[in-house]
Amino acid sequence: MSLLVVGTVAFDAIETPFGKTDKIVGGAASYISLAASYFTKDIQLVSVIGDDFPDSFLNTLKLQGIKLDGLQIKKGEKSFFWSGKYHNDLNNRDTIDTQLNVLANFDPIVPESSKNCEFLMLGNLVPAVQQSVISQLSSRPKLIVLDTMNFWMDIAMDELKKTIARIDVLTINDSEARQLSGEYSLVKAAQKILEMGPKVIVIKKGEHGALLFNKEEVFFAPALPLEEVFDPTGAGDSFAGGFIGYLAKTKDISFENMKRAIIFGSAMASFTVERFGTEKLIGLTQDQINERVQQFVDLVQFEIS
Amino acid sequence: MSLLVVGTVAFDAIETPFGKTDKIVGGAASYISLAASYFTKDIQLVSVIGDDFPDSFLNTLKLQGIKLDGLQIKKGEKSFFWSGKYHNDLNNRDTIDTQLNVLANFDPIVPESSKNCEFLMLGNLVPAVQQSVISQLSSRPKLIVLDTMNFWMDIAMDELKKTIARIDVLTINDSEARQLSGEYSLVKAAQKILEMGPKVIVIKKGEHGALLFNKEEVFFAPALPLEEVFDPTGAGDSFAGGFIGYLAKTKDISFENMKRAIIFGSAMASFTVERFGTEKLIGLTQDQINERVQQFVDLVQFEIS
Repeated sequence: MSLLVVGTVAFDAIETPFGKTDKIVGGAASYISLAASYFTKDIQLVSVIGDDFPDSFLNTLKLQGIKLDGLQIKKGEKSFFWSGKYHNDLNNRDTIDTQLNVLANFDPIVPESSKNCEFLMLGNLVPAVQQSVISQLSSRPKLIVLDTMNFWMDIAMDELKKTIARIDVLTINDSEARQLSGEYSLVKAAQKILEMGPKVIVIKKGEHGALLFNKEEVFFAPALPLEEVFDPTGAGDSFAGGFIGYLAKTKDISFENMKRAIIFGSAMASFTVERFGTEKLIGLTQDQINERVQQFVDLVQFEIS
Repeated sequence: MSLLVVGTVAFDAIETPFGKTDKIVGGAASYISLAASYFTKDIQLVSVIGDDFPDSFLNTLKLQGIKLDGLQIKKGEKSFFWSGKYHNDLNNRDTIDTQLNVLANFDPIVPESSKNCEFLMLGNLVPAVQQSVISQLSSRPKLIVLDTMNFWMDIAMDELKKTIARIDVLTINDSEARQLSGEYSLVKAAQKILEMGPKVIVIKKGEHGALLFNKEEVFFAPALPLEEVFDPTGAGDSFAGGFIGYLAKTKDISFENMKRAIIFGSAMASFTVERFGTEKLIGLTQDQINERVQQFVDLVQFEIS
């Protein structure tokens, strides 16, 4: 088994300066697994939904080669729901409504066939739940990547730190890196966080790109300057999905290969933000992805003579 | 004559989260000409100061090879003074005091020997004053670069637009690009501004790097992730100085060479912010600059196999 993805599969209602949606499909694991599915077909999804979730989306996931043995469907219960409104600058958003529903008692169960996964992507969730997944595995994966957010730093910092100590790569945004480390400089923040356990940290800066650090090296990947950023929801998860998908495909976890993985992750995120929800992540061609990656190459290409 | 630099030579008093200065030497033209002096020794400075200005700094400029025939020294008058305080994030600042002094009636006089300059760098000033410099030249320079700021967009937009129509490269920051164009997307903003006259626009994003646009191409240069950003004052001007200095040295104004120029500009800015004022721009060695540029190369270097 290659890649195990854990996280939410949920409903979102989103308002941006460009439009508004009713309930549409979202959730970290939806974006992660869709983005990763363009790189490897050996993906298992662990999540929970209610019986209100559309079969059509589950079929879409299956068609993309994503296995759903780890997806619990709770009869008579409702799926997790989040509603938010983005400010004009799209960098900030207000949460309008959060209904935990099935997520309130989520007890992830890793299918037997996935307990020896080589790559584990822990999408944003209660840190204790993320840990319980690691504990269920029969062998230590080649790479564990974890995404989290400021919310858990506010209410469960100790548990979060215990979880972070067990992983290889942490992906968080710049303000979260500052909060977790207590350092304003991202260079210092990264070094302090690396002392907490992870070998690598990815600091996501949204429209300003992403930084990749290990203890000795740093790499910067730009975000693509886009004419239209329609809806930033899921950008970070699509980034994480492209990142771990590329690593799972190439099975090379060197820093050099992580640089490439970050570029593929950034490319997947650049698609996601062009439409509401997961729309743009469905039905992409390999040519479209290669063309997008080439735009990143061109964007930063220069030669000092 | 190679490079003509026009702008303020002034006093600043700066407070950052890391410390506070009394009156120190600053001004756009100080940073620009110092940064450019590492690339070409054929620089003429056009500015105005009072008789309160320290000879030691003027000698420093001369030692760096900067000609001061165009520097007016007004007897019995005081130099321009600005005082500001940076917020904790260093991206925002409050102006505490502005004393125009000699700048109130600045009438720049281009020395005869510089009227045929090949490269003209117009630092931030009243747009009408920037225009008067262009009008004094005996021949159209190979390249005119102009820096400006939101203040002139607020109070002299028409005059600014007339000035912008006469130049080749405009350097402004992201919020100024949005204000000037009325577009939030930087891609759209750049295209709209290019229709106003310039062939190239550089959008400076501070710690988030810089974007270079012409009508067909885009290039992104990162900022170096620094452990300490001590004082951001003069970063944009040092960037502009390194940019035009490199172009004046190589005499190549192709888009490809402008990419290199942006990297050298970013390197010069990365030195400036490490100390208060112009301190770090004095006495740099070519090895230090090359080493810094190599850090930019390494920072974004990746290969898609």
